[in-house]
Amino acid sequence: MSVDFNTVATEFCNFYYQQFDSDRTQLGNLYRDQSMLTFETSQLQGAKDIVEKLASLPFQKVAHRISTLDAQPASPSGDILVMVTGELLIDEEQNAQRYSQVFHLIPDGSSYYVFNDIFRLNYS
Amino acid sequence: MSVDFNTVATEFCNFYYQQFDSDRTQLGNLYRDQSMLTFETSQLQGAKDIVEKLASLPFQKVAHRISTLDAQPASPSGDILVMVTGELLIDEEQNAQRYSQVFHLIPDGSSYYVFNDIFRLNYS
Repeated sequence: MSVDFNTVATEFCNFYYQQFDSDRTQLGNLYRDQSMLTFETSQLQGAKDIVEKLASLPFQKVAHRISTLDAQPASPSGDILVMVTGELLIDEEQNAQRYSQVFHLIPDGSSYYVFNDIFRLNYS
Repeated sequence: MSVDFNTVATEFCNFYYQQFDSDRTQLGNLYRDQSMLTFETSQLQGAKDIVEKLASLPFQKVAHRISTLDAQPASPSGDILVMVTGELLIDEEQNAQRYSQVFHLIPDGSSYYVFNDIFRLNYS
């Protein structure tokens, strides 16, 4: 039986942000060679370059808080699209920054990998 | 020759918001029976239900302003994923509301239709 796409999307995002906030150098397993990341104005392709980019971000402590999470099936073969809006707390800053992020997840055996990943801070 | 995905994404979003802001009852051509819309907490499927939802939104005048637009190829067959962050000005309100929106566009002959559409206001 296939798992509900909302459950997959929620569990994926919870795992992703927990891993990002505890040790983002370990996120490589969630990407493949063909995966793409747009992080603000930077564009990366491939698990290795994507993780190098994430690891190089200029902060030590980081915490993501999800505000909204919406998922939809994105293909007949089980792809899932997720859009997250949330807040990011960096190092000792008092004020959270709002962000928006989209993940396109592709099934891979009993798991999923990230094919598309677009991240933007919401400037106000 | 295929058109660059960034160009397609930009032209699509410009057309979409221009049409939305001038007469959103005419957006049906951009959706198909299998298309999905998540608009805040509402979930709709199919061009007819989607356009009815958009037409029923409780405002007369509306203007979208794009702040950021990021696109990626989403499949070998030419699908495109676009994430927009922007501002929405409604009726006579003085303050714009920030929003995030994602479109998954699928090629259809020389054009594209919207397969996935997720829209959220960014509450602060």
